[in-house]
Amino acid sequence: MKKVTVLGAGSWGTALAMVLTENGHDTLIWSHREDQANEINERHTNEKYLPNIQLPEKLTATSDIKSAVEHGEILVFAVPTKAIREVAGQVMNYLDKKVLIVHVSKGIEPDTLKRISEILEETLDPRVVEDIVVLSGPSHAEEVVLHHPTTITAACANLRSAEKIQDLFMNHYFRVYTNTDVIGVELGGALKNVIALAAGISDGLNYGDNAKAALITRGLAEIARLGVRMGGNPFTFAGLTGMGDLIVTCTSVHSRNWKAGNMLGKGMKLDEVLENMGMVVEGVRTTKAAYQLAQKYDVSMPITTALYQVLFENKDPKDAVDELMHRLKKREIDYLQ
Amino acid sequence: MKKVTVLGAGSWGTALAMVLTENGHDTLIWSHREDQANEINERHTNEKYLPNIQLPEKLTATSDIKSAVEHGEILVFAVPTKAIREVAGQVMNYLDKKVLIVHVSKGIEPDTLKRISEILEETLDPRVVEDIVVLSGPSHAEEVVLHHPTTITAACANLRSAEKIQDLFMNHYFRVYTNTDVIGVELGGALKNVIALAAGISDGLNYGDNAKAALITRGLAEIARLGVRMGGNPFTFAGLTGMGDLIVTCTSVHSRNWKAGNMLGKGMKLDEVLENMGMVVEGVRTTKAAYQLAQKYDVSMPITTALYQVLFENKDPKDAVDELMHRLKKREIDYLQ
Repeated sequence: MKKVTVLGAGSWGTALAMVLTENGHDTLIWSHREDQANEINERHTNEKYLPNIQLPEKLTATSDIKSAVEHGEILVFAVPTKAIREVAGQVMNYLDKKVLIVHVSKGIEPDTLKRISEILEETLDPRVVEDIVVLSGPSHAEEVVLHHPTTITAACANLRSAEKIQDLFMNHYFRVYTNTDVIGVELGGALKNVIALAAGISDGLNYGDNAKAALITRGLAEIARLGVRMGGNPFTFAGLTGMGDLIVTCTSVHSRNWKAGNMLGKGMKLDEVLENMGMVVEGVRTTKAAYQLAQKYDVSMPITTALYQVLFENKDPKDAVDELMHRLKKREIDYLQ
Repeated sequence: MKKVTVLGAGSWGTALAMVLTENGHDTLIWSHREDQANEINERHTNEKYLPNIQLPEKLTATSDIKSAVEHGEILVFAVPTKAIREVAGQVMNYLDKKVLIVHVSKGIEPDTLKRISEILEETLDPRVVEDIVVLSGPSHAEEVVLHHPTTITAACANLRSAEKIQDLFMNHYFRVYTNTDVIGVELGGALKNVIALAAGISDGLNYGDNAKAALITRGLAEIARLGVRMGGNPFTFAGLTGMGDLIVTCTSVHSRNWKAGNMLGKGMKLDEVLENMGMVVEGVRTTKAAYQLAQKYDVSMPITTALYQVLFENKDPKDAVDELMHRLKKREIDYLQ
């Protein structure tokens, strides 16, 4: 039995806290909103993020970051990418013992172009950090809380730490693999949201499954091209955190990034879409970061570029997808390598 | 303008014949059923395979194999795998000029374990064959006839012949890439049907998108493992004919193999399922062939093996999928390499 704190009470943080509680761990979930912490403690629900789900009574919540930090020997960061730096800063104020850090966020910081673990390494004092493990893979929270079978990857350069997190989460419906390729796992998780937006646009334009399959396939090719250039292992992109997560994000009704793209494809403007969603759409900011990374590493990323133009340069989504589908005929292998 | 004969008037053969006619080629389609040929000639429909679709008036049909063979300078084989050898034999009876051969079938012959192009090479006299090109990729006929954007690959060891077929089919909604890796393209197209059956079973058991994404990901890993051992290029499996076709087959409502698996997952027996489908379910026979190939090449193919046990050894589908999801914890990279 471990003492675990989950930082962030969105749908994924809450679902993971449920898994941990069910596995017998003493789990505390931190929300920055007091009313949400009260709802979890008193009604054992989190209606905004996981409607109609009864949380375990043993799962408790707090909105006090100090008690949250003091509770955990393992801290799980489950906040949106843009909140990581700030929450990590708050955590540092109260961290006076060595902890194992896990994060489950999927994004890249625009402009700095840092991955989540890099932001955490920068913000947290190494003397109080045992290791940083990333947990990622094809895993909609809505299915995990229903105990549908899910497989996921825990990655850390130090395999021993990845295995600790594997043991922490593993149960009969939640299967955890390990990997030592943090770069590949983080990039796959972040960049798939860019492709999910593009797949949503294609579906919003009613272009069908053939077109979407082509976009997903070429999407993974460009993710892997960048990822390998940045030091990731090519096999990682073919695995759960690459192809697996990309497929689920592009084809599942639960995906927010796909939904947002779908609205764009149907002609809605970006600000209307974001207002409509009411939850964070990581892919929008990630598209900007991915576009910057493609330039920095001089890697061809046609889908990312097209999407950047749609989101930030007012390009018509239909023109963007049509251009992607109509690129000059050439050997298939050329766009994969 | 070319004179093209499409052999086989199922949904895919008919859709391709439409594309060719729309591209201005003099296209004749051969059906082994006289009433179907008459329907195409008189009513310009093929209701059984492409309901509610009006075919171009210029597209003509015949049930006479002799006139079909005489018509074409290019012959497109679009018959089920199990009919390839027989139809090729009939074609040979009348072939007295050199033709370019295309095939679009996705299967492997059980027991002989031959790919389609190998069967054609064996059956057709090389003196009348210019080359054999395979056309494959994520492409539901139902979407192609609606002019939804589709991308596909033409593969031949001789790139010049692949390019001829690229030029023949290419238009604004049907984009054709080339590849020289015939082995990889044929294996990807055939083996994805095995994984689609497994994905259908998982969906029939209501296991959700997380589980299905994991199955598809590991499915591609085992296809690539076998394919590379048999001489395919690893990049091919990451492309349109590998990952792309796998995704569309496992996630689209149009996929017959997924549908058949879905019924199995809901508890129907194999013979009931096949009766229910009314069309060829290539994946069933391909599973047998793939299982035999895994043994012959000594490659670990856990999904194929589980499916073989379900189809041919009466294993309970739920037990099979549960066992796949619960394999011993280990490093993710191990099952990819």
